[in-house]
Amino acid sequence: MEANNSGTAAAAAELPDSISSVIPGWFSEISPMWPGEAHSLKVEKILFQGKSDYQNVMVFQSATYGKVLVLDGVIQLTERDECAYQEMITHLPLCSILNPKKVLVIGGGDGGVLREVARHSSVEKIDMCEIDKMVVDVSKEHFPSVAVGFNDPRVTLHIGDGVAFLKAVEEGTYDAVIVDSSDPIGPAQELFEKPFFESVAKALRPGGVMCTQAESIWLHMHIIEDIVSNCRQIFKGSVNYAWTTVPTYPSGVIGFMLCSTEGPDVDFKRPVNPIDADDSLAQAKGPLRFYNSEIHSAAFCLPSFARKVIELKD
Amino acid sequence: MEANNSGTAAAAAELPDSISSVIPGWFSEISPMWPGEAHSLKVEKILFQGKSDYQNVMVFQSATYGKVLVLDGVIQLTERDECAYQEMITHLPLCSILNPKKVLVIGGGDGGVLREVARHSSVEKIDMCEIDKMVVDVSKEHFPSVAVGFNDPRVTLHIGDGVAFLKAVEEGTYDAVIVDSSDPIGPAQELFEKPFFESVAKALRPGGVMCTQAESIWLHMHIIEDIVSNCRQIFKGSVNYAWTTVPTYPSGVIGFMLCSTEGPDVDFKRPVNPIDADDSLAQAKGPLRFYNSEIHSAAFCLPSFARKVIELKD
Repeated sequence: MEANNSGTAAAAAELPDSISSVIPGWFSEISPMWPGEAHSLKVEKILFQGKSDYQNVMVFQSATYGKVLVLDGVIQLTERDECAYQEMITHLPLCSILNPKKVLVIGGGDGGVLREVARHSSVEKIDMCEIDKMVVDVSKEHFPSVAVGFNDPRVTLHIGDGVAFLKAVEEGTYDAVIVDSSDPIGPAQELFEKPFFESVAKALRPGGVMCTQAESIWLHMHIIEDIVSNCRQIFKGSVNYAWTTVPTYPSGVIGFMLCSTEGPDVDFKRPVNPIDADDSLAQAKGPLRFYNSEIHSAAFCLPSFARKVIELKD
Repeated sequence: MEANNSGTAAAAAELPDSISSVIPGWFSEISPMWPGEAHSLKVEKILFQGKSDYQNVMVFQSATYGKVLVLDGVIQLTERDECAYQEMITHLPLCSILNPKKVLVIGGGDGGVLREVARHSSVEKIDMCEIDKMVVDVSKEHFPSVAVGFNDPRVTLHIGDGVAFLKAVEEGTYDAVIVDSSDPIGPAQELFEKPFFESVAKALRPGGVMCTQAESIWLHMHIIEDIVSNCRQIFKGSVNYAWTTVPTYPSGVIGFMLCSTEGPDVDFKRPVNPIDADDSLAQAKGPLRFYNSEIHSAAFCLPSFARKVIELKD
């Protein structure tokens, strides 16, 4: 999950509190988004603390998960498990279409999604719109293996509001739009609403694809139900929900909403554009650690309690 | 995960500590099995605290996960997410063979696996060997929707050491053996070692199946590597690793080792014995909440980092 993307300033969580109030010397993630539970990581050293125009930004060295990026008290990535999120949110959409050329990333200021998009040699142009420059700067300093994505010459970084950026995009510009957002309370709320999805659909070519962070089947089924319902109204191609494991996200899973616009059929469950683990780009970026074609298809298989809400409610 | 099954008494974690030392009024799960991280649940009320011959047993009402069973400071089940573990550890093996008739459960003293085994109308006999009677009694009192499994007339409960029980079993007795054990440090250690797997293989008919709790791909790859290696030496049929999501287990996932003995082929990835969600038994036990045939097959798709260790190291 990544930085907010609309203009409102976040209600700032106090940084010292999130470190000390739970286990002394540990960081604990407490939020009304997951009441009654908390995941804690042991802190070796705080490496950065700052307050941008949009949110509190913190980086710490954890005892067992490598460096950790925290925005407004919520873990965005750890070096140990970021591969799962970054690879899945990127390759689920990009491996579902042939020859993606133009890709837009909304959010994702750490650069991890860029790193993954750049593995696709068919891609000619990668735009990113991230609202918070502090996230980009902090990632470049503290997470070089993630921020490596910014080094790709195909990348153009726009610092600004993703909602406004999308509205200005010419119709049918992109093959794929990836929305790497934070949770839908606070500044990222607009990224889960109908007008935003309408802008995304308009920015995509016929048969183009969107992938957006879509919360946890264990915690947020009511949010997911709304997202699915909104997307079914707006995207006239395929609308599918996928999920994967990320240990440091609440409940240990994160979901993705995958949609395609009217046009050439997209079957998200059967990737048509396999990415080779040992392609020429792997050398610079390291091999894929998580994604493969099998886990791509498996990600769309839902537990019965989730299937009932997501798939069978047409 | 469930009670220990060998004779050694556990090094007892102090119960009051696990409640109070971290977040006041919260239970935190801290263990050398997952250093540097902890998952915490808010406690509404402690419902039971006891010390058996083998371990500390605690039940509390949590704020958002229902009632929670804790053994030696480690969460074994919560009412909110127990369905994932119980259904997967049971139906992965039982849906992989036709007409299972005789099933042995080692551990599983809460009764949840029994509840799931009993959904299979072909089953004629269900033996359970659980070492700790206190777990059974506590489950019957505090988790009636889980312990309902004990009411099935096909069930015979043996209180005793699972390792010894298995050694006394006549060769080729069972169609399936399910090992619902706790972690391999402390009393359950033997359940992850070669002699135990040899006893299981002997107790199974040709083409019979074992499913055993096999830890987390994110945390315990070295343990998994050993289990896989042991099983490949002992089980001459199929040897496969599967995993699923359980939010209240460390790292949010738990794995299963599925093996079959020499004999009729078993393809664990393609279930041949589908269980109907609305069969006649569902009325008494409630419908399946998690398992379905799609998620069965998907459970065998591993992230690349795990596949490299588990599948490609032949």
